[in-house]
Amino acid sequence: MITVGIVGATGYTGAELIRLLSQHPEVKIATLTSRVEAGRDAAELFPFLRGRCDVKFSAPDFKQLAGCDVVFFATPHGVAMEQAPALLDIGVKVIDLGADFRLRSTAVFQEWYGLEHTAPTCLSQAVYGLAELYPDAIAQAALIALPGCYPTAVQLGFAPLLEKGLVDVDDLIAACASGVSGAGRKAELAYLYAEVSENFRAYGATRHRHHPEITQCLSDIAKRSVGLTFTPHLVPMMRGIHASLYANLLHPTELSVIHEMFVQYYRHEKNAPFVDVMPLGAHPETRSVRHSNQLRIAIHQPNPKKIVVLVVEDNLVKGASGQAVQCMNLMFGLDQTLGLMQIAT
Amino acid sequence: MITVGIVGATGYTGAELIRLLSQHPEVKIATLTSRVEAGRDAAELFPFLRGRCDVKFSAPDFKQLAGCDVVFFATPHGVAMEQAPALLDIGVKVIDLGADFRLRSTAVFQEWYGLEHTAPTCLSQAVYGLAELYPDAIAQAALIALPGCYPTAVQLGFAPLLEKGLVDVDDLIAACASGVSGAGRKAELAYLYAEVSENFRAYGATRHRHHPEITQCLSDIAKRSVGLTFTPHLVPMMRGIHASLYANLLHPTELSVIHEMFVQYYRHEKNAPFVDVMPLGAHPETRSVRHSNQLRIAIHQPNPKKIVVLVVEDNLVKGASGQAVQCMNLMFGLDQTLGLMQIAT
Amino acid sequence: MITVGIVGATGYTGAELIRLLSQHPEVKIATLTSRVEAGRDAAELFPFLRGRCDVKFSAPDFKQLAGCDVVFFATPHGVAMEQAPALLDIGVKVIDLGADFRLRSTAVFQEWYGLEHTAPTCLSQAVYGLAELYPDAIAQAALIALPGCYPTAVQLGFAPLLEKGLVDVDDLIAACASGVSGAGRKAELAYLYAEVSENFRAYGATRHRHHPEITQCLSDIAKRSVGLTFTPHLVPMMRGIHASLYANLLHPTELSVIHEMFVQYYRHEKNAPFVDVMPLGAHPETRSVRHSNQLRIAIHQPNPKKIVVLVVEDNLVKGASGQAVQCMNLMFGLDQTLGLMQIAT
Amino acid sequence: MITVGIVGATGYTGAELIRLLSQHPEVKIATLTSRVEAGRDAAELFPFLRGRCDVKFSAPDFKQLAGCDVVFFATPHGVAMEQAPALLDIGVKVIDLGADFRLRSTAVFQEWYGLEHTAPTCLSQAVYGLAELYPDAIAQAALIALPGCYPTAVQLGFAPLLEKGLVDVDDLIAACASGVSGAGRKAELAYLYAEVSENFRAYGATRHRHHPEITQCLSDIAKRSVGLTFTPHLVPMMRGIHASLYANLLHPTELSVIHEMFVQYYRHEKNAPFVDVMPLGAHPETRSVRHSNQLRIAIHQPNPKKIVVLVVEDNLVKGASGQAVQCMNLMFGLDQTLGLMQIAT
Repeated sequence: MITVGIVGATGYTGAELIRLLSQHPEVKIATLTSRVEAGRDAAELFPFLRGRCDVKFSAPDFKQLAGCDVVFFATPHGVAMEQAPALLDIGVKVIDLGADFRLRSTAVFQEWYGLEHTAPTCLSQAVYGLAELYPDAIAQAALIALPGCYPTAVQLGFAPLLEKGLVDVDDLIAACASGVSGAGRKAELAYLYAEVSENFRAYGATRHRHHPEITQCLSDIAKRSVGLTFTPHLVPMMRGIHASLYANLLHPTELSVIHEMFVQYYRHEKNAPFVDVMPLGAHPETRSVRHSNQLRIAIHQPNPKKIVVLVVEDNLVKGASGQAVQCMNLMFGLDQTLGLMQIAT
Repeated sequence: MITVGIVGATGYTGAELIRLLSQHPEVKIATLTSRVEAGRDAAELFPFLRGRCDVKFSAPDFKQLAGCDVVFFATPHGVAMEQAPALLDIGVKVIDLGADFRLRSTAVFQEWYGLEHTAPTCLSQAVYGLAELYPDAIAQAALIALPGCYPTAVQLGFAPLLEKGLVDVDDLIAACASGVSGAGRKAELAYLYAEVSENFRAYGATRHRHHPEITQCLSDIAKRSVGLTFTPHLVPMMRGIHASLYANLLHPTELSVIHEMFVQYYRHEKNAPFVDVMPLGAHPETRSVRHSNQLRIAIHQPNPKKIVVLVVEDNLVKGASGQAVQCMNLMFGLDQTLGLMQIAT
Repeated sequence: MITVGIVGATGYTGAELIRLLSQHPEVKIATLTSRVEAGRDAAELFPFLRGRCDVKFSAPDFKQLAGCDVVFFATPHGVAMEQAPALLDIGVKVIDLGADFRLRSTAVFQEWYGLEHTAPTCLSQAVYGLAELYPDAIAQAALIALPGCYPTAVQLGFAPLLEKGLVDVDDLIAACASGVSGAGRKAELAYLYAEVSENFRAYGATRHRHHPEITQCLSDIAKRSVGLTFTPHLVPMMRGIHASLYANLLHPTELSVIHEMFVQYYRHEKNAPFVDVMPLGAHPETRSVRHSNQLRIAIHQPNPKKIVVLVVEDNLVKGASGQAVQCMNLMFGLDQTLGLMQIAT
Repeated sequence: MITVGIVGATGYTGAELIRLLSQHPEVKIATLTSRVEAGRDAAELFPFLRGRCDVKFSAPDFKQLAGCDVVFFATPHGVAMEQAPALLDIGVKVIDLGADFRLRSTAVFQEWYGLEHTAPTCLSQAVYGLAELYPDAIAQAALIALPGCYPTAVQLGFAPLLEKGLVDVDDLIAACASGVSGAGRKAELAYLYAEVSENFRAYGATRHRHHPEITQCLSDIAKRSVGLTFTPHLVPMMRGIHASLYANLLHPTELSVIHEMFVQYYRHEKNAPFVDVMPLGAHPETRSVRHSNQLRIAIHQPNPKKIVVLVVEDNLVKGASGQAVQCMNLMFGLDQTLGLMQIAT
């Protein structure tokens, strides 16, 4: 059994980790930390856990975390970089669901997150936890920088096109839409039901924190610097991310050829059990992956030059906590699908 | 008082027409036709009308319609082209909320709507009812082809850029999202609450009927043929359209200059009371125009070459019935805002 | 023109007051106060007001309020009782949308609201603003204690049965359900979209602050002390209250007789333009009154002894701001429907 | 392995059966019948099944069903009573999720369902599938009449009070609310997103088909005829039932005593793993049981005479398909929780 700790388990990604890990056959949750909720049963805060999880929140305590095999940080940026180094030093593996170790440049981190990076030496050992693209590195890693929710969808949608060099990487567009849980479990007016329901809007159309992460990672895949326009939108729903990705083909190519290339890429080259390339003509819907670790992709060619890739995922599962468990499985030599085969609802 | 008839008043655009026209100070609703609901009170079908509208649905009857000053067709395509010619012949004005008179080419109409056009001679007299761009022609028209909901948002968002020749018209992208009332009041599984809620998806990513309309009309504005990629999405909400429009600048231009140009265009050149160009940095939300004839626009420049225009409207008001009333006002010499100044809710 | 001020105009009832009063033909909004938002345009906080209301929020200032004909308090309990006395002293009328003047007993007020009442002398002059039942007193009043949202629906549903002495007043049950705007515009976790959507729950099943108000007021109507069980529920929607009221008939009575009695009561005895008694067999829906000042009632008799009254209203309009404007109209000698005839959406 | 067939697998309860049975460790789905969808992959109709279930729909065929160990009927009333007798004759067990075998009186069945009962001889062998109350009979049964969704919640909420004789059974009230999936997957205007969202209404307040079933079953529990007022309401959500149950105590009893009695009843007398009696003061929410077979109960006493029981369940799981699997487990000698321990989402 793998002994796990979760730091910051009171948010939506934390709750999702508890849900997934409570049902994982090889995991024992040892500690859930929360400064604010210390002493309360997790099931009191999250009634869906009543009768299924009897762990209490406790105040953050190094000794308890030090006894874990792996610690998940489901915290706002800034927390993991403070606490991870000491855990890594004593051999505890760390999976950070936040942004602290995603950007290779501390200057870029500081520009976008407004904090000086306090653990720059960890950055070099951090492995980017996109399991479909970097499974071997993840298996060897002590520290995982888990991708953001949007970056996961955008990268897996663009990856085959970029890796095969089929499109103009100077003009990539990602028009994305997310359910409101992506904003976290925070008491803010903007995310009240009465503000979000029956409403649709873009946000961060000029600047969004996921932009530098996506650009860095797409550039890695393309092996050259890419130009990306990224527009996130807020959808009146709880969960789900949808990405509509636009790229211009460098050379005329039939859609069927591109489609077959995507199928081969994920089925054979990447051996990716959680990526479903849908049949030609399909339009994936977020509901079809809700509460599951699945990601679905469809490809359209509205005119000969333009490829439109449509991607859906559950932002809290494949876009966060499910992907974290997938990385954990790889890090501990388990089948990457263990505990993650729930059918979408 | 203007005596009006509504053909096909049992759908969402029909109901919205009844709501707007019942409160219009210069209108008397003379007849509401519905083959299926003939004999029933409108207020029985639409309880929000109880005590406010005492008209009954009646079976379609030429004599009744012939007594109207103007007849609105809120019908599926194919109906207006059958019935409009006879009304026009006797001097009744016609406003078609459907697609019958939008496309100038009967061949294109047949390709996209699967029907032979039966009133080609009317096409030449039809005026495209986009009130902000064609107010004078509308004022003179006997027959209005009202724009579709998506086309209204896309055209008003792109118009200043195209008319001023600022962007590459060969690669325009419109990633749009609509509330479900855009699909009409039809008993179809795909639009059940249990299918639509907590779900987001694109549809028609390769082909959508609004594509030829938008392309034709953007080409009119640009005075040359444009290339458009159009992706509609379905949002779990009742009303509202959001358009995220992408274009590449031909020459480096500061955002503030473009913003000022938009302001001037709609405030002074077009004198458009229903178009609100928001301040720099804003992101319009569909709720801010719900149940109103307002359309709001914001402009972003995420990188020096790319302009992103965000547009919101209520698909049933500015995208349909409100715009129809706005055209009616112009056709009858009234202030175009009469009966249309409801504050959004 | 009536010059009005609104204290606490940044909540949902405040915003609804601004919307209604901006469109009222006899009103000029002179001042909107908000300590937090002072200096900001109302339209910046509420984008639906852009182009329709150019008033700025200002810090609370007695002189400005003193220049008004009437001041609305759309504030949490405790504010109006501090500020109203001085305004009343100089002849400014006050309409309190909060709870400060609803309960006749200061002891009961203190028990339920946890505050000592600081303006007990005002209590005797306060008139309960249920316009259908007390129009004459309201017309003479200087200070209105506006009913709560639930109390309005429950009282108007039970009133004819109680006033005519048809039912056992010792065992009245009100199972009510409200949209989430009833909780106010407050940054609390419990009202986040991600908590409210796809969820239904009762709250306050043992104790709720509206219980003493409803009991006091039903007892007024029945002219004897009543026994009430009140269970509020939270519905995943923005607006609307639905009350399902249960009472036992004292004597066997045909439903048609009771129905006719309700019709007569509201149409002729009370002359109530905003109360719609629906036909036998109907089930009112909240959508049918949304954004309107209408309240609809239907009556059922599932077994000979039991009467079930179903009531719907918009909690922010007839349940708050619309009712406030209705009272204002009566206080200033205007037709009570002025500015309140919007058709529901 | 248990070989199962599902007749009518294209509705919401059918889809939920496929989801649950696909993940059940002792089940093999042999056949899914649908007249309309014959030949299509289940995963084509329900994209959430892609990669998880490769069964095709087939036209109803007696031979295929005859090869199953158990056949589930997730069909409208009338289908199971036609097909079940032949299956029972050859030893295939039948679980009917519909209404055909719930009512003991064929006259009552005909009155409420408008059909003559064609399998009256089966009625005597049908066992009512409320697993918490009748586990032994279910274990021996060949034919299960599965309770309706509302009846499950109402019975489990009232059962301890009735069995112990604590309340006046002549005046029971059940004010219930259901998500829209309860109406089934039918193309009807009333269940469109645009009709259901932002709306709340009662329906069937005078008559509802679940009334005779609940009355019959509560009378069984109380061992005398009960009087019930039942009011269902439609909530703008996909899944979930909430029941607010009202009863008058026969003798003064402390709430803590009643609460302890509920705990004992379900924990020890009934040994019911899926019933969670919540702590005093709690209000169960439908989200806390969503997608799970759990049912939660809380008890309130707003005044000394009145007991209010609040109950939540997922109408498609504990209210239908989950309960069906629970019965199947009992019928085949398995632990009743097998395959049903999903944590709510």
